[in-house]
Amino acid sequence: MYQRDKSGVIHAANCLNPSRAGTVLLMPNLGGQPTPDTGLLAPAWLPANTTVPAELGGRFSILDVSPSILGGRRSAAGAAGEAIPVQVTAFREGHDALGVEVVLHSPNGSEYSRVRMQPRNDGLDTWAAHIRPDAMGLWTFDIEAWGDPWSSWTQRAGIKIPSNIDVDLECEEGARVLERALPQLSGQEQALFATTITQLRSQLPPLVRLAAALAPEIASIMFQNPVREWVTVSGSWPLNVQRRRALVGAWYEMFPRSEGADLKLKKSGTFATAMDRLPAIADMGFDVVYVPPIHPVGEINRKGPNNTLTPTPGDPGSPWAIGSKLGGHDAVHPDLGTLKDFDAFVARIHELGMELAIDLALQTAPDHPWVTSHPEWFTTRADNSIAYAENPPKKYQDIYPLNFDNDPEGLYLEVERITRFWANRGVRIFRVDNPHTKPVWVWERLIAAINATDPDVLFLAEAFTRRPLMQALAAVGFQQSYTYFTWRNERAEIEEYLKELAGPSALAMRPNLFTNTPDILSEYLQTGGPKAFAIRAILAATLSPTYGIYSGFELYEHVALKPGSEEYLDTEKFEYRPRNWAKAEALGITMAPLLTAINTIRREHPALQDLRSLRFHTSDNPNIIAFSKVDQGDCILVVVNLDSYTEQQGTIWWDMPALGMNWDENFTADDLLNEESWLWNQHVFIRLAPWEKVAHIVHVEQEARGGK
Amino acid sequence: MYQRDKSGVIHAANCLNPSRAGTVLLMPNLGGQPTPDTGLLAPAWLPANTTVPAELGGRFSILDVSPSILGGRRSAAGAAGEAIPVQVTAFREGHDALGVEVVLHSPNGSEYSRVRMQPRNDGLDTWAAHIRPDAMGLWTFDIEAWGDPWSSWTQRAGIKIPSNIDVDLECEEGARVLERALPQLSGQEQALFATTITQLRSQLPPLVRLAAALAPEIASIMFQNPVREWVTVSGSWPLNVQRRRALVGAWYEMFPRSEGADLKLKKSGTFATAMDRLPAIADMGFDVVYVPPIHPVGEINRKGPNNTLTPTPGDPGSPWAIGSKLGGHDAVHPDLGTLKDFDAFVARIHELGMELAIDLALQTAPDHPWVTSHPEWFTTRADNSIAYAENPPKKYQDIYPLNFDNDPEGLYLEVERITRFWANRGVRIFRVDNPHTKPVWVWERLIAAINATDPDVLFLAEAFTRRPLMQALAAVGFQQSYTYFTWRNERAEIEEYLKELAGPSALAMRPNLFTNTPDILSEYLQTGGPKAFAIRAILAATLSPTYGIYSGFELYEHVALKPGSEEYLDTEKFEYRPRNWAKAEALGITMAPLLTAINTIRREHPALQDLRSLRFHTSDNPNIIAFSKVDQGDCILVVVNLDSYTEQQGTIWWDMPALGMNWDENFTADDLLNEESWLWNQHVFIRLAPWEKVAHIVHVEQEARGGK
Repeated sequence: MYQRDKSGVIHAANCLNPSRAGTVLLMPNLGGQPTPDTGLLAPAWLPANTTVPAELGGRFSILDVSPSILGGRRSAAGAAGEAIPVQVTAFREGHDALGVEVVLHSPNGSEYSRVRMQPRNDGLDTWAAHIRPDAMGLWTFDIEAWGDPWSSWTQRAGIKIPSNIDVDLECEEGARVLERALPQLSGQEQALFATTITQLRSQLPPLVRLAAALAPEIASIMFQNPVREWVTVSGSWPLNVQRRRALVGAWYEMFPRSEGADLKLKKSGTFATAMDRLPAIADMGFDVVYVPPIHPVGEINRKGPNNTLTPTPGDPGSPWAIGSKLGGHDAVHPDLGTLKDFDAFVARIHELGMELAIDLALQTAPDHPWVTSHPEWFTTRADNSIAYAENPPKKYQDIYPLNFDNDPEGLYLEVERITRFWANRGVRIFRVDNPHTKPVWVWERLIAAINATDPDVLFLAEAFTRRPLMQALAAVGFQQSYTYFTWRNERAEIEEYLKELAGPSALAMRPNLFTNTPDILSEYLQTGGPKAFAIRAILAATLSPTYGIYSGFELYEHVALKPGSEEYLDTEKFEYRPRNWAKAEALGITMAPLLTAINTIRREHPALQDLRSLRFHTSDNPNIIAFSKVDQGDCILVVVNLDSYTEQQGTIWWDMPALGMNWDENFTADDLLNEESWLWNQHVFIRLAPWEKVAHIVHVEQEARGGK
Repeated sequence: MYQRDKSGVIHAANCLNPSRAGTVLLMPNLGGQPTPDTGLLAPAWLPANTTVPAELGGRFSILDVSPSILGGRRSAAGAAGEAIPVQVTAFREGHDALGVEVVLHSPNGSEYSRVRMQPRNDGLDTWAAHIRPDAMGLWTFDIEAWGDPWSSWTQRAGIKIPSNIDVDLECEEGARVLERALPQLSGQEQALFATTITQLRSQLPPLVRLAAALAPEIASIMFQNPVREWVTVSGSWPLNVQRRRALVGAWYEMFPRSEGADLKLKKSGTFATAMDRLPAIADMGFDVVYVPPIHPVGEINRKGPNNTLTPTPGDPGSPWAIGSKLGGHDAVHPDLGTLKDFDAFVARIHELGMELAIDLALQTAPDHPWVTSHPEWFTTRADNSIAYAENPPKKYQDIYPLNFDNDPEGLYLEVERITRFWANRGVRIFRVDNPHTKPVWVWERLIAAINATDPDVLFLAEAFTRRPLMQALAAVGFQQSYTYFTWRNERAEIEEYLKELAGPSALAMRPNLFTNTPDILSEYLQTGGPKAFAIRAILAATLSPTYGIYSGFELYEHVALKPGSEEYLDTEKFEYRPRNWAKAEALGITMAPLLTAINTIRREHPALQDLRSLRFHTSDNPNIIAFSKVDQGDCILVVVNLDSYTEQQGTIWWDMPALGMNWDENFTADDLLNEESWLWNQHVFIRLAPWEKVAHIVHVEQEARGGK
């Protein structure tokens, strides 16, 4: 796809002006030396065909297709079984009627579904529908727009015939449209149509003839079997459908070295001892166990407790300071066990119906084997030292960042090798540390390469950065992303952010809402008391189909390093933190029962496994947030008191049509969390006292609800 | 580019899934008959290569390039000499600095200009600059993003050196970046750099060494001659640059048949008599004379005065009811004269420094020659009659709409023939009647075909419809469009609408703000008295670089057909309307002096020939609107009292930085309309009494103003 000219310039084919378009100039890099001709950006790893669908230019106009990423240059994201909203702008000249369909094609190219799109009647020619791919793979969808002569006729005749204008002529033309529909109808439908055609051509009173043609049965049959004129098909829009775990999952982060560790002996826990903790995690209903890096920890410049520079012997250091004489990214820390022990740990997780996520942290300790074998993978400074990480004036001398610009191909291939090493040992999920500090192309190439052979492998981006880069990481392949959820605690900020995450952002990015992480103990948790933990867990687990907690959350761990800091005191990043789960359970100071309940409700309710149907409803108390989700006929309402200390009262106004109900309808509200039941309607008075309960998670019992 | 398979399906090449992408199905049209295989949508008339530029995938990421239309599938619009705002999202991983440039390439492919883009610092990685192509043609622009090691160094060293961290190392690395810049510098610059490099490597105090490197001269030279690493070039984005008249012009609409008409004799004016009116139009400073259709008017079902169905002999009928036994779209109405007379009319217009726009109205009277020669170009109804225009229950029996679906190729070629017929007679501007009632492809093909041979021909879309279709017409080639300006009379609605027209809409569409048309006598003009005419003329002429009036406006014609109607009483559409210009001038009841003044100011001030720099400023009186434009160092402020009867007072707060001034600056305000001058500053008190004046058009006199 790219050609290189003698000056080292790479030309992209298929561009408007082939002499310049898509050009990537390989410029001199450092010290005036020409960059080695590494072929960095000759993207053999990109799909061969990266052109995009057409829009204008057909008989009718189809524009603004959503979901689409970069105008079709990348795939939109979907998950198996997910209801994906499709929206387009489609219009025709003049006043005749248009019909619009979305046609979903499965990865083998066959037509999987065909759905009539509904006009939004917003004055902007917007049409909407849902598609629901049922399996993993690269699906595509087309939009078809066509002249709808039946709707054109009913519009026109519905005005003219009652006014006694051109009655016979209009009836004859209506009859002819119905005749054109006949070939695709069943025998019974054909008989009905024949009767109607006869009535239209009769000399019955005009309104009788019109009424026959406008009968609901005719309308319904013509909607399902439209006469289509001048069908215009948009280009194919790509939709990368992942397995369901990409969209839905409850994550639990734990440090294996803490489970079974002996603080007095400064002895690490192992995969074997950590295994004892797994059944409890499974019992709480978690789906994914995520463990920080499991590799040898660097010894040079190792950090002591609480990020100090003065470790004492036996301090374990940060697992993210990867590599020592004991090995690098493809080794297991001997303190945790052997590769065989790792395999057993993975097997046990699978046995319990969960999966493992490991960390992919592309950085090293100063004593990582790469530092001596491949110094060109790092930045060498003017004094010939290798650059450590810094955020001036802060220095992180236990960490060496990688530099992809000196030997992009060599370093990339090593990154792919280590990723594949773990994938080949059964790892299907990688949590990627700080992907926003590595070139975007690395991720696009890596994820494409791994998914080409292992399409079920998922990558979670631990990216905390500006929106465009977070979106770009999703667009180039990351199946999930961390978010700013921990810092969104007030109603207005939760609503604004989640509307973005469930709306425009969701075209590419699936949010994983962690309540806490080893890096983030939010002020809300530090100061909100135990009920703050319940509130945040309920929000995370119901706002997003994927959420997570970091070990210790269920024990209400909330003491920060110092005021104003979000670091845990005695953080597990630099110390073993064995926890006494049995004692906590005995004393009842654990959230395990609540987490179990929430995860059970999530598993039983498709609505909570959906992201994009999230909708916020009006609440007159700013401390009470109310939202809903709808999927597969399941409708869940969530009402949460955001104030962990004080009783809050207020009225919620449900947007009833958004829930598939009429404004005046009553419905049975079954509170799944508190096992209560009420008759609710459009407005409901809520009282939530934290000492009794912080939230309602309500299942709507109502018979014929519409929607997806 | 398209291939047709045996079922008549046309396949677009270059699509993601060649088996379906871009497919246009030619469906059975009427009565189950297969559509003739006309090749309708095989777009030989589209550019051969319609693929689009790349975005992600390079060393750095470049996204959201503006101006762009449909992701690069169509060209953005520009005019010769126009300052075009360019904006992109560009970012890199990590914390090092990025440099971004926009590179403009002239139609021959050579680099025309290279401009450093400035970060907006909006937290969204937005960069902005202006480009200014100087001639007509298909230009392109690229975005280049590159690592900026000098800025990375100044950021880092600026923190570390004052903290006495790694002073020698940082200074050495700064020196090395400066050394890399040397080859591209002048001798004088090299000498300065050599000194600085020596200072950096000296043992002078750290802050002295840093200060030498951070000197403004160094910053300026490094900004102009940056050291660029890993230059990543976006694809080429197309920019269709039209001649200046596409952007800038004052239009005057007139009916030649009225000028010199004799009402008593029901005798038409002619091209020859209408010529007498031209000097006065030129003297007022108008650039374009637009005349409604000049073809023979149909006699069948001809309309009488005020749209009645009962014409009397000698009534001229509507010029838009085109065609009779005397000829069709390629004929001149004998009442107006001959083709030679038309040529003389055109020549006289050119002689006076103006140009002619004629009407392209693709519809016919029932007696147009096409009706018998090509009945397939119309819609035949079930009773074998040809369908006339209707908007049920209203009928327009003097007009037959064309139908492009029966013989698209044949009818299209005839449309191209008649357009070219007039283009070949010197017509360079076509005002297209109701383009939104014809298929969009007709316009894309026609404008491309005409502009391929006659790139200076302009098409103005008389489209009043929903936004997507208006935008689509611009995207497929219309150089100008009518707007909803006549119905935007209050400040909030003017601001909202013009922000759209000068902002997102302007990427493709150039607005032509008519104050009135033969179809639109707004309520504001009907009821506002003479000052309403002045207010609307000033707004139209200063809000947009292209505006127009329809003859009679300058005489304050304001009597509507009936209350609630926007039709003129005794409208010129169905009657001759000779006007007594001399008498009006003698009595002083003409706006000619004001129009002359406005058009003179427009010609003398580049700011008023610009659209996209339009910016509204805060006014505390909702009846007073204030806005500014800036171009080529010219800055114009406009303040208008929207209340045509009552004195209004209030304070304007100018957004001084938007005008290139500091918040606390004073400036000389020269009122070009009223020949007054004041010293103004950030807030100014305004008093506008309609009987004295309705507006200020102020030129800002200030020395070193920045901006474009």
